[in-house]
Amino acid sequence: MKLQAAIDRVDLAEALVLAAKLNTADIVEVGTSLIKDYGLEAVREIKKVIGTSQLLADIKTIDEGEYEFRQFFDAGADILTVMGASSPETLEICYQVTQEYEKEMLIDLLECSAERIAKIAHFKEAIYGMHFSKDSGRDVDVVKEVNQFIRTHPAIKRLALAGSLNLEKVKKLQKTPLEIAIVGSAIVSSTRPANEIKKFKEVMK
Amino acid sequence: MKLQAAIDRVDLAEALVLAAKLNTADIVEVGTSLIKDYGLEAVREIKKVIGTSQLLADIKTIDEGEYEFRQFFDAGADILTVMGASSPETLEICYQVTQEYEKEMLIDLLECSAERIAKIAHFKEAIYGMHFSKDSGRDVDVVKEVNQFIRTHPAIKRLALAGSLNLEKVKKLQKTPLEIAIVGSAIVSSTRPANEIKKFKEVMK
Repeated sequence: MKLQAAIDRVDLAEALVLAAKLNTADIVEVGTSLIKDYGLEAVREIKKVIGTSQLLADIKTIDEGEYEFRQFFDAGADILTVMGASSPETLEICYQVTQEYEKEMLIDLLECSAERIAKIAHFKEAIYGMHFSKDSGRDVDVVKEVNQFIRTHPAIKRLALAGSLNLEKVKKLQKTPLEIAIVGSAIVSSTRPANEIKKFKEVMK
Repeated sequence: MKLQAAIDRVDLAEALVLAAKLNTADIVEVGTSLIKDYGLEAVREIKKVIGTSQLLADIKTIDEGEYEFRQFFDAGADILTVMGASSPETLEICYQVTQEYEKEMLIDLLECSAERIAKIAHFKEAIYGMHFSKDSGRDVDVVKEVNQFIRTHPAIKRLALAGSLNLEKVKKLQKTPLEIAIVGSAIVSSTRPANEIKKFKEVMK
């Protein structure tokens, strides 16, 4: 399993200090708030301080897929997100651009019904992101959700999960085929983020 | 009917030159590409050059509604967009923040089924945006679409429409209850945008 550490809702100066402490995570996520507040600059600047970690820009594309994907891959992103709620044409063009750049695409399944997911499950090399809305306020049994998701959607081989993950939950997720655990505040709100990453990587072994 | 002139897919310097020529439009739209490329700065800078025109920032919120709406209203936006595909909680919090700021919210109906629209038609003061995806490539009979939409969703009183509108289409739309016509390239790709706005305002009388 890979660890993705997410930075969100801080100003860019703070994000840069934080990002430099996250360079032992497999993936550093530049959260949607940073994208919407600072644009491409957030990606260009954070890219410089994260060493060999991959950079995921959570741009949540829902239209104008080709433009947005080219802009953010050119700015240095390794993984970009597109909403599963987008039109089939948007998903298709994002996938094509991703293949062309030899980079990665994550399809965010926020507000996608099982029926919708079944319709968009054919992007073989895409990562699918189970994403529990920050606005919904629900607490969920993540292991149960992952196992149920995989049974329902056998075509999907690459899965990421976001939503209030902590050390305990990630430890349990080791028994599932989850590829990427996306962790936010449990790492970035800590006074010693690098130390927290170390703990997560221990339970992920 | 109000005229909204949309700026998209240009760099910020070019956007500023253009925006200054659009100050006779009722609403100047800072397109999603400018938001994702430059963030809040695009709104702050464009706000300075559009006089008394309202500023719509097409931020396409789909999660973290409160954060995004507060950030962009604080930056000077008068109207913000949220995706109809968002969770009910996201739509609700965006609406609440909009009421608090005494500003406007536009719900973008991209990829929303009639069933979905019926479920989110209760935000009385919100504007609903019929939005034909740039990625879909379809050409549509806009007058027919507007009339059909209104018959299907009588609860919705405020309607905006985007998608390849030109002078001829806007003239026909005068016969419908459309509140806002969103025009992109027909104005901004012209060598004399202010002149084009004048023509649109003539047919809108």
